[in-house]
Amino acid sequence: MKIVIVGGVAAGASAAARARRLSEEAEIVLLEKGEFVSFANCGLPYHVSGAIEKRDSLVVVTPKTLREWFNLDVRTMSEVTAIDREGKKVSVTDRGSGLSYQETYDKLILCQGAAALSLEVPGADDPRIFPLRTIPEMDGIIAAIDGGATAALVIGANYIGIEAAEALIQRGLSVDLVELQDQVMPALDREMANDLRFHIEDRGVRVHLDSSVQAFSEAGGRLVARLADGGSVVADLAVMAVGVRPDTALAEAAGLALGATGGVRVDRHMLTSDPDIYAAGDMVEVTDAVTGLSARIPLAGPANRQGRVAANHIFGRDDAYVSTQGSAIVKVFEMTAAITGASEKTLKAAGMDYRKIYLHPYGHASYYPGTEPMHLKLLFAPGDGRLLGAQIVGFDGVDKRIDVLATALRAGMTVHDLEHLELAYAPPYGSAKDPVNMAGFVGVNLLEGDVDFWYPEDFPERTAGGVILDVRTNIEYRNGHIAGALHIPLSELRSRLGELEPYRDRDIFTYCLTGIRSYYALRILRLNGYDNVYNLSGSWKTWTSHFQTRGEDGARLLPHTEAVED
Amino acid sequence: MKIVIVGGVAAGASAAARARRLSEEAEIVLLEKGEFVSFANCGLPYHVSGAIEKRDSLVVVTPKTLREWFNLDVRTMSEVTAIDREGKKVSVTDRGSGLSYQETYDKLILCQGAAALSLEVPGADDPRIFPLRTIPEMDGIIAAIDGGATAALVIGANYIGIEAAEALIQRGLSVDLVELQDQVMPALDREMANDLRFHIEDRGVRVHLDSSVQAFSEAGGRLVARLADGGSVVADLAVMAVGVRPDTALAEAAGLALGATGGVRVDRHMLTSDPDIYAAGDMVEVTDAVTGLSARIPLAGPANRQGRVAANHIFGRDDAYVSTQGSAIVKVFEMTAAITGASEKTLKAAGMDYRKIYLHPYGHASYYPGTEPMHLKLLFAPGDGRLLGAQIVGFDGVDKRIDVLATALRAGMTVHDLEHLELAYAPPYGSAKDPVNMAGFVGVNLLEGDVDFWYPEDFPERTAGGVILDVRTNIEYRNGHIAGALHIPLSELRSRLGELEPYRDRDIFTYCLTGIRSYYALRILRLNGYDNVYNLSGSWKTWTSHFQTRGEDGARLLPHTEAVED
Repeated sequence: MKIVIVGGVAAGASAAARARRLSEEAEIVLLEKGEFVSFANCGLPYHVSGAIEKRDSLVVVTPKTLREWFNLDVRTMSEVTAIDREGKKVSVTDRGSGLSYQETYDKLILCQGAAALSLEVPGADDPRIFPLRTIPEMDGIIAAIDGGATAALVIGANYIGIEAAEALIQRGLSVDLVELQDQVMPALDREMANDLRFHIEDRGVRVHLDSSVQAFSEAGGRLVARLADGGSVVADLAVMAVGVRPDTALAEAAGLALGATGGVRVDRHMLTSDPDIYAAGDMVEVTDAVTGLSARIPLAGPANRQGRVAANHIFGRDDAYVSTQGSAIVKVFEMTAAITGASEKTLKAAGMDYRKIYLHPYGHASYYPGTEPMHLKLLFAPGDGRLLGAQIVGFDGVDKRIDVLATALRAGMTVHDLEHLELAYAPPYGSAKDPVNMAGFVGVNLLEGDVDFWYPEDFPERTAGGVILDVRTNIEYRNGHIAGALHIPLSELRSRLGELEPYRDRDIFTYCLTGIRSYYALRILRLNGYDNVYNLSGSWKTWTSHFQTRGEDGARLLPHTEAVED
Repeated sequence: MKIVIVGGVAAGASAAARARRLSEEAEIVLLEKGEFVSFANCGLPYHVSGAIEKRDSLVVVTPKTLREWFNLDVRTMSEVTAIDREGKKVSVTDRGSGLSYQETYDKLILCQGAAALSLEVPGADDPRIFPLRTIPEMDGIIAAIDGGATAALVIGANYIGIEAAEALIQRGLSVDLVELQDQVMPALDREMANDLRFHIEDRGVRVHLDSSVQAFSEAGGRLVARLADGGSVVADLAVMAVGVRPDTALAEAAGLALGATGGVRVDRHMLTSDPDIYAAGDMVEVTDAVTGLSARIPLAGPANRQGRVAANHIFGRDDAYVSTQGSAIVKVFEMTAAITGASEKTLKAAGMDYRKIYLHPYGHASYYPGTEPMHLKLLFAPGDGRLLGAQIVGFDGVDKRIDVLATALRAGMTVHDLEHLELAYAPPYGSAKDPVNMAGFVGVNLLEGDVDFWYPEDFPERTAGGVILDVRTNIEYRNGHIAGALHIPLSELRSRLGELEPYRDRDIFTYCLTGIRSYYALRILRLNGYDNVYNLSGSWKTWTSHFQTRGEDGARLLPHTEAVED
């Protein structure tokens, strides 16, 4: 058995090591076009920032180790230029010597990953513009900084763009961040990403949303980017992080079937349309675990497991890679943003029905120091309450809750199951009613009709026909409230019910700070015969996340609100 | 409908608030014998230490808030002394006035919790000996410290005892910790707890295992505890943390059925043997989620949910509390220890078959700063690999992985499912192959026969018939190895296979630092026709956790090992 693997980073290295553990006889050739195998591509921004001090620590496993431990024939700087499926051989070019040769295979595994997209604009080939996907690209950015760069432009505000912006700020550069969409972190729903935008700006990044670079030029030896809004950014280097495309040129030229999304089509065993060729990692098309649709979801964890599945199948193991749910997380300066499953926009695009709730629980017991509220959004099926997706933005404990929810979603759990999850509690780690339990309580209350919600986007059309009721304390109300809201603190509601008599046949829209007190208010009203009461999910905090914007002078603005002047 | 609730902390307060949200008409009387309702009993040690600065922040909800928000009739200092089931009324004594009265009920919910056990030894009634379950007890400890106490004795090294020891050290006291069993944290298996013992000792606590207090006396105005080993400890205060017993006196006197474990017997709706009396929280007997046996597992999260279930059932909701899996976590100075599901000793006692594995993965990507390896033990069923229990001891990321495993266990997941869990990865939070995925890989390898393990407890009887093979590097081997081990570094194994020829028909017991390289070695040997090869699960690190002890002079000792002298 001779196995040739094209690409030696995540999927490729995993496939090779696993194959060797299943066979000492197999000849295993690992062809990597770059200089490095199995390097930590997710760590690159953190070496730019200096958080990861040693460049060497990004090289997880060296070719030498792969040879010694796994008896692999590792060839770096070796680019595969063609596949001869009939003859079962590949053409390889040694990028060092320039010499080409052919290598036969019994089984071929393609693990070529994805390549950074560039912009099709004038000047985009300027050498001061770097993707941040490889060690040489990272080296280029660091060299530019060490060479005296003082200003940087980052294009694209998704994972890598945000990590790059943070790294450049930490290196003392002035940073502009340009994003085509009207939000940072387009993987998240917009209202969840809005707090991140303000946090990023507070840390010194100038964020340009709804914008794009129209052209690059040079002025005074510096790079000038002209933006769509007519403005321009002057920088010494730029990081191009506008996304990736699967590296399918080789597969396509060989006539392997691609999916509708542009990734290589594979079955559950990672087998392509050729029974002797597998593909794994960022270059393949996967099935979305929630929508069931085909998707391209480039992630390191799935890539590793797909490589393992391919190797297992070659040696007759019935292992399968079923679907990808898109669990992802990103550090955004002091904040953390994470997602698993489908976002609301994904569900809308897929035409799937859903319910949604927002919560603001603390990362651990609020009386124990070192915690902040997190903004948690949960999406679930209207009927049985099956989890469809979750997003969390906050500080401590975000990573834990997204992983618990990712596990629950994979298990097919419902909001009923979340109620009764028994998580480990002590004050430094959580709460007796964990954020995940709380999400279960709220979700079940909604499904059972104990509560109905309204949302910031319902304002003002839907709320116009009724009354908005603020049940917070006097101080909270005076500091700022939704314009036109009636104010009755929760503690006075039972004794002041008469004031709501005029609204008995109209809709009452309650809110408080996080949605807990206004839920209590809703229950009081419902049980007193007010049938049309709705609670603002996530209340004032989610309202703020939804609406907050920045004025001309840079000050934060919260439209549709007013304060009480003394 | 008139509901009387006895006990106003976790289960009681939850039941009362939930009942009100389901009915505005119900009369709800909350009787609490102490001064406080709904206080943070888990936070008490952290106010002793000073981590929680304000005493007030331990009072989660005041009686005033419960009255204002939920229209509850809250009566503190009100002790229920008898239940008249026939007449459906309780006898109440107001501890302030000393007056007694009767209160009728339609439904009664008992939430009396558990009381601290004391020791039946002379002098155990000394007023300087405090449990740490209530605010007044905490106040007593703090007053003793503020009054000049310089030495403390903590009796019992489970959750509260360890938290108390840490708090007292942080307040600058000299601390002795006495534990009846031969390990700290008896909820964990002994080898998992051993590292905690050394960490606690390193932070200045004198730990007395396999010991107990035989008598308390006084000398020179100080408290003297005589220990079973003949030694004695002189202290200014003692914390009694030897466990709790369910507070069932009232239920018993009323003739309610108790379970074999001594807790009140309840059904899935928390209903006792009387159809109008519910019980919830630490006083009830629950079903163990893994063994299916009756158990008493006092935990805050389950107590809260049980209270909610009882209230739901009163109002006709078919909510159920099914079982408790015993998820728990404790901060041990800089370390964290956590468990979910059954321990190995619990499985043994229940006569259940199991497989076990040990791993030492990092909390997040090892190249990103701020992480340490954790010691993870996973127990699962031999056939289908269903999860039975997990224990983790370490630093960062322990709380996250125990909650993911708690969720997976509750979902009935197997080690196969853990392999494919898609957790959120970025270098500051995890690894592309998360510790939970790694546990899945190792578990599946074991079930599929790709690896077989040996364990520290197999030494020396089982290993005597074969050869122990150390596959670490020369430096690692020279610094210390299992006595008598043959040494062939993994990188030389294929070329030095001949040296193992004499052992072809005997057992070969491999090990390395964590079990990964020795697994690779096992695969090489197996595929080269060595059929009887076993890998030391968790390898040198688990070996150390299992065997490490302390010599007469206080130095750490690692028996059965030797180093190479230069």
